[in-house]
Amino acid sequence: MQMGLIGLGKMGGNMRERIRRAGHEVIGYDRNPQVSDVASLQELVEKLEPPRIVWVMVPAGEPTRATVRELAGLLTEGDLVIDGGNSKYTDDQPNADLLAQTGVGYVDCGVSGGIWGLENGYGLMCGGSDEHVEKAMWIFDALRPEGPRDEGFVHAGKVGAGHYTKMVHNGIEYGLMHAYAEGYELLEAKDIVTDVHGAFKAWTRGTVVRSWLLDLMVKALEEKPNLEGISEYTTDSGEGRWTLEDAIELAVPMPVLAAALFARFGSRQENSPSMQAVAALRGQFGGHEVMQ
Amino acid sequence: MQMGLIGLGKMGGNMRERIRRAGHEVIGYDRNPQVSDVASLQELVEKLEPPRIVWVMVPAGEPTRATVRELAGLLTEGDLVIDGGNSKYTDDQPNADLLAQTGVGYVDCGVSGGIWGLENGYGLMCGGSDEHVEKAMWIFDALRPEGPRDEGFVHAGKVGAGHYTKMVHNGIEYGLMHAYAEGYELLEAKDIVTDVHGAFKAWTRGTVVRSWLLDLMVKALEEKPNLEGISEYTTDSGEGRWTLEDAIELAVPMPVLAAALFARFGSRQENSPSMQAVAALRGQFGGHEVMQ
Amino acid sequence: MQMGLIGLGKMGGNMRERIRRAGHEVIGYDRNPQVSDVASLQELVEKLEPPRIVWVMVPAGEPTRATVRELAGLLTEGDLVIDGGNSKYTDDQPNADLLAQTGVGYVDCGVSGGIWGLENGYGLMCGGSDEHVEKAMWIFDALRPEGPRDEGFVHAGKVGAGHYTKMVHNGIEYGLMHAYAEGYELLEAKDIVTDVHGAFKAWTRGTVVRSWLLDLMVKALEEKPNLEGISEYTTDSGEGRWTLEDAIELAVPMPVLAAALFARFGSRQENSPSMQAVAALRGQFGGHEVMQ
Amino acid sequence: MQMGLIGLGKMGGNMRERIRRAGHEVIGYDRNPQVSDVASLQELVEKLEPPRIVWVMVPAGEPTRATVRELAGLLTEGDLVIDGGNSKYTDDQPNADLLAQTGVGYVDCGVSGGIWGLENGYGLMCGGSDEHVEKAMWIFDALRPEGPRDEGFVHAGKVGAGHYTKMVHNGIEYGLMHAYAEGYELLEAKDIVTDVHGAFKAWTRGTVVRSWLLDLMVKALEEKPNLEGISEYTTDSGEGRWTLEDAIELAVPMPVLAAALFARFGSRQENSPSMQAVAALRGQFGGHEVMQ
Repeated sequence: MQMGLIGLGKMGGNMRERIRRAGHEVIGYDRNPQVSDVASLQELVEKLEPPRIVWVMVPAGEPTRATVRELAGLLTEGDLVIDGGNSKYTDDQPNADLLAQTGVGYVDCGVSGGIWGLENGYGLMCGGSDEHVEKAMWIFDALRPEGPRDEGFVHAGKVGAGHYTKMVHNGIEYGLMHAYAEGYELLEAKDIVTDVHGAFKAWTRGTVVRSWLLDLMVKALEEKPNLEGISEYTTDSGEGRWTLEDAIELAVPMPVLAAALFARFGSRQENSPSMQAVAALRGQFGGHEVMQ
Repeated sequence: MQMGLIGLGKMGGNMRERIRRAGHEVIGYDRNPQVSDVASLQELVEKLEPPRIVWVMVPAGEPTRATVRELAGLLTEGDLVIDGGNSKYTDDQPNADLLAQTGVGYVDCGVSGGIWGLENGYGLMCGGSDEHVEKAMWIFDALRPEGPRDEGFVHAGKVGAGHYTKMVHNGIEYGLMHAYAEGYELLEAKDIVTDVHGAFKAWTRGTVVRSWLLDLMVKALEEKPNLEGISEYTTDSGEGRWTLEDAIELAVPMPVLAAALFARFGSRQENSPSMQAVAALRGQFGGHEVMQ
Repeated sequence: MQMGLIGLGKMGGNMRERIRRAGHEVIGYDRNPQVSDVASLQELVEKLEPPRIVWVMVPAGEPTRATVRELAGLLTEGDLVIDGGNSKYTDDQPNADLLAQTGVGYVDCGVSGGIWGLENGYGLMCGGSDEHVEKAMWIFDALRPEGPRDEGFVHAGKVGAGHYTKMVHNGIEYGLMHAYAEGYELLEAKDIVTDVHGAFKAWTRGTVVRSWLLDLMVKALEEKPNLEGISEYTTDSGEGRWTLEDAIELAVPMPVLAAALFARFGSRQENSPSMQAVAALRGQFGGHEVMQ
Repeated sequence: MQMGLIGLGKMGGNMRERIRRAGHEVIGYDRNPQVSDVASLQELVEKLEPPRIVWVMVPAGEPTRATVRELAGLLTEGDLVIDGGNSKYTDDQPNADLLAQTGVGYVDCGVSGGIWGLENGYGLMCGGSDEHVEKAMWIFDALRPEGPRDEGFVHAGKVGAGHYTKMVHNGIEYGLMHAYAEGYELLEAKDIVTDVHGAFKAWTRGTVVRSWLLDLMVKALEEKPNLEGISEYTTDSGEGRWTLEDAIELAVPMPVLAAALFARFGSRQENSPSMQAVAALRGQFGGHEVMQ
C-alpha cells in the first residue's frame, strides 16, 4: 500500500519508519529537504497513485489549516486527508467541509505514544465516516500497538471525535498527575513518614493506584528523592484549557480538572493578585483578631 | 446589674466600657494590674454577689480552659460562666460539664464587631439552655447593636452553638473574600479594563455584590490602586480549618471554603511541592509534546 | 436633552421613566406598539435631532447585534449608540467597528439594579472612548444613584470594558452566593444549632459578612425557615460561564467561581454520570472493603 | 518460622494461606470457631514460642484497639504485634506505647491487594523501628509480590507511617477515580463522540493515562456501555476524609482530593441544601434577569 506523510519531525519521522517496517510505501514531505522524500507538496501528490491517502503531521493551528487548504487545491475526488496532529477539534469540521467540496475525504486522528511509539506502537483515536476510516485502516493497523485492534485504536465517532477524545485523554491526565502530586506533598509534609520515594515505589505492584504515571513518578524520585532543585513553574499546552472550556459549554462539572489547571496557572505567578487582595482585605480589618 | 469580666484586652476592655455605659456594674480582672479592677480571680468572685455572672474573654484554647477550671473551683451553685472568646466549639460541652458538677451554668457566645463594637455594638451568637441565656440577656442587650434584638443577637442552640455559629460566620467570610479577590485578579488581567478601583467603587451602591467587605476592598484600592507592594502571604486563624473539618465530619460539600483555604495555604509556599511533582512528571515524559 | 431608547421591557421602561424624571426627553421604541412612542426604528431616528444618542436595551445576542446593524444603516456621523443590555463583551468591538464605518460612536454599558433601579438608581459600568462616554454623561447621571458619581458609575476602560466589568460583577456574585449557601448547609447539618434563620439574621448588623445578599438570605429564610419545598435545580444565565472562560484564557485561577458554577451544573443532574463512573469503578474492586 | 494471626476473614484467611504456602507456620485465631486454629487468644499466645509475632487483622477502630489491649496483657518482653488492618494512623502511637510498657514491640502495616493478594501478593507499607520491622521481614517477604522487595514493600517511617502511607494511597485513589469519571462524563455529553467505551479501551495500551483503574473502567463499560442502571450514590470509607483532615492540619492544599470527596458527599444528597439556598437567593432577586 502507498501513502503520503507531511511533517517528518520526531513524531512524523518515526511514524514513517514504523509504517515502512510494516511493509508499506510512505512518501514523506517536510520543509526540511534533508529528511524529505520529495521537494514539494505538489510533487508528493503527483507521486501518489489515486485514490491517495495523505497524513498531515504538522503543528496544530494555522500550520495544519494552511496545509489542508493547500491539499484541497491539489487532491482530487476519492482522495483522503488524515490530520494526525494535536489540532483543536473545532478545526476538524471546517477542514472536512473544505475538502468535501472537491470530493476529498477527511479523518481526524489523535495520536498518543511519543518517542516510544516507534517500537511499541501508537494509541490512535479517530473521527470521521465509516468509509473514510475503513479506507485508512491498514495505516492505523501499522501504527497501533500489536495485539487486539481495540486496545490501541478507536473509531470514536464523527469528524472531530478523534481529536476530541485525545483532548479529553489529556484533560484526564491533568487530574491524574495532580492526584499523585497532592499525595506526594502530604507524605513529604508528614514528620513520621521518612521514605516517600520508597512509598511510591512500593505502590507500583499490586496496589489500586498503580499506573504508568506512577512509574514515571518513581523514576523522577529516583533521580531526585525530594525533587530538590525542581521549580514549581509548569506550563500547559492547551488541551487542559480546551477540555475545561468544553465542559463549561456542556455544563459538565469538572472540579478535578479545574483544580489541576488552576494549580498550573498559580505555579507561574510570583505574587498572586487574588491573595494580595485577600491580604489587603484582612489588613483593612485592622488586624482580623481585633476586628471580629 | 452586676457582672465580672475576665480579660481586659482590646475586646474585653471595650466591652467593659460599653456595658458600663449601659448603666451596669462591671468588675474586671486581668493579669495586667494596670487595667484590672481586682488583684485576683478569687477577689473578683468574692466581690460579686451571688448568683454571679462571669464573662471570660481570654485567648482561646488552654488559657480559656484553664480559666474555666479555676472558676469551677471558685463559683457556687446558681452562678453562670459565659465564654465570649474565640474558642473551638468542641471546648464548650466539656466546660459546661465541668461547671455543672457544682451547679454552675455555662453559655458560649461568639462575638463579632472588633474595634467598632464599642460604638456600634457587637454581633452576638449564643449557645446554652434557655434559662442560662435568659439570665444574661441584660448583658447581651448592652453589648449588641441598638435596634431589634434579633438583628445583632441569636440564641442559636445548645451549648456550643454560639461558637459554632461564629465559626461558620468566619468560614463564610473566607469564601466571600476570595470571590472578590478572584474578580479583582481577572479585572486586573484584562487589557481593556483600565480602572479596576473605579469598578469596585461603582459597585458599592445599587448592585448585587455590595457589602461591607466590598467597602473595605474599595478602601484598600484607594490606598494602593494596584495593591502594589502587598505580599500574597496570608495566614489563617483557624476558624476556616475548623469549619472545613466539621464539613468533612458532617459530609457537607464546601468547595468554596476549601478553595479559599487552600489558596491561603498556597500563598505561604515558595515552591509548591505538588507543582514540583507535576513538573517532574512532565519532565519524565521527555518533553510532553514529544511524548504524547 | 434628548435621546432615543430601544427596548421598553421592565428594564428599558423603567429607565425611560427615570431619565424623564430627571427632566430629559426620551423617545422610546419597542416592537410592542402599546409601549412604544414611535412606530419604527426609522421614525425614532428621524425624530431625534443630530447628533443623536440611541440607547439599546434589548436581549443580548442576535437581537442586540441585529439592532446595531439596523442602526448602522440609519444613523449618521457624530451620532452615538449605547448598548446597555447584557451582551457578551466580545460583541462590543465588532459593533463599534461596524458603526465607526459611518462615523457613529459606540459605548457599552453594563447596568445593575433591576426593579429597584427606578427609585434607587442603576449601577453603571461603561466602556468606550473618553469622548463618547463624556457625550452621554448626562444620561449616566440621570440613571445612576444620586450622590457621588463614582459610587454608582465607572468608565472602566476601552470598548467592551463596561460589559466585561458587569460580567465579572456577576461572576463574583456566584461565589458570594455559594459562600453563604455552604454556611447555611453546614449550620443546618449541625445538631446543636437549632435557629439557623436567627443566626443569619443576627449577622445582618455589625458583622464582617453583612451584605445585601445576606439580607436577601434572611428574607428567604423568613418565608421558609428551612427552605422547605425549594428545589436545588438552579439555572445559570451565562455570565458565570463567560467569566470562567475568560479566566481560562487569561490563566487566572478562579476556583471559587468554578466551584459555584459546577454546583449549579450538578443541581440539574438527576444522576451524575461522573459519580456513576466512580460507583462503577468501586464496584469493579469487588467491594472496595474486600479489594484494598 | 512461626507466627500468630488474629482475624481470619477474607483478608486474614488468604494471608494465612499465602504465608503457609511460603513454608511458615501460622496459628490463626478468629471468633468464628469454624476457621480458627485455637479456641482463644490466650491459647494462641500459649502455643507460640517466644519471642512471638502476632499479626492483628480485625476491623479498624475499637475492635483493633481492644485486641491490642488484650494482647498487652498476654504477651511478654521481646514479643511483637503487627496491626495490618485499616486503622487510622492516630491509633498507632497509643498502641505502641501501651505495648512498650511490657517490652512488646509494635509495627503498623497498611496492606493493599484485596482478593487478588493471595495469588499476586500484597502491597505492604510499614511503620515502626528498624529492629521491629526487621524482625518481621520474613512475613513481609511471604506476603508481598515476588520480585524486588522495594516494589511491593516499604518501611515508610516511624510508628504510624505505615497506616499513614496507606491512607494517602487511598486519598490519591479518590482523585484518580474522579479524573477518569470526569472524562467519562464529558465524552458521554459530546454528541460527536459515539463510542465512549471504545475510547477508554483504546487508552489501555501505549497512552499516558493507562493504569489498573483504567482497566477496571473498561471492564465496567464492557458490562454496561453507558453505565445504565448504576446509581450515582457513593459512600466513602473514611480514608479520604482522614487524608483531607490531615492536609488541613499540615496546610497542604489538596483541591483534587477535596473535589472528589465533595462529589461523593453530593452524590448522597437528594436535594442539596446549598443549592436550595442559591435557588432561594435568586428567587429573592425577583427573577435575576429583572433584578440586575
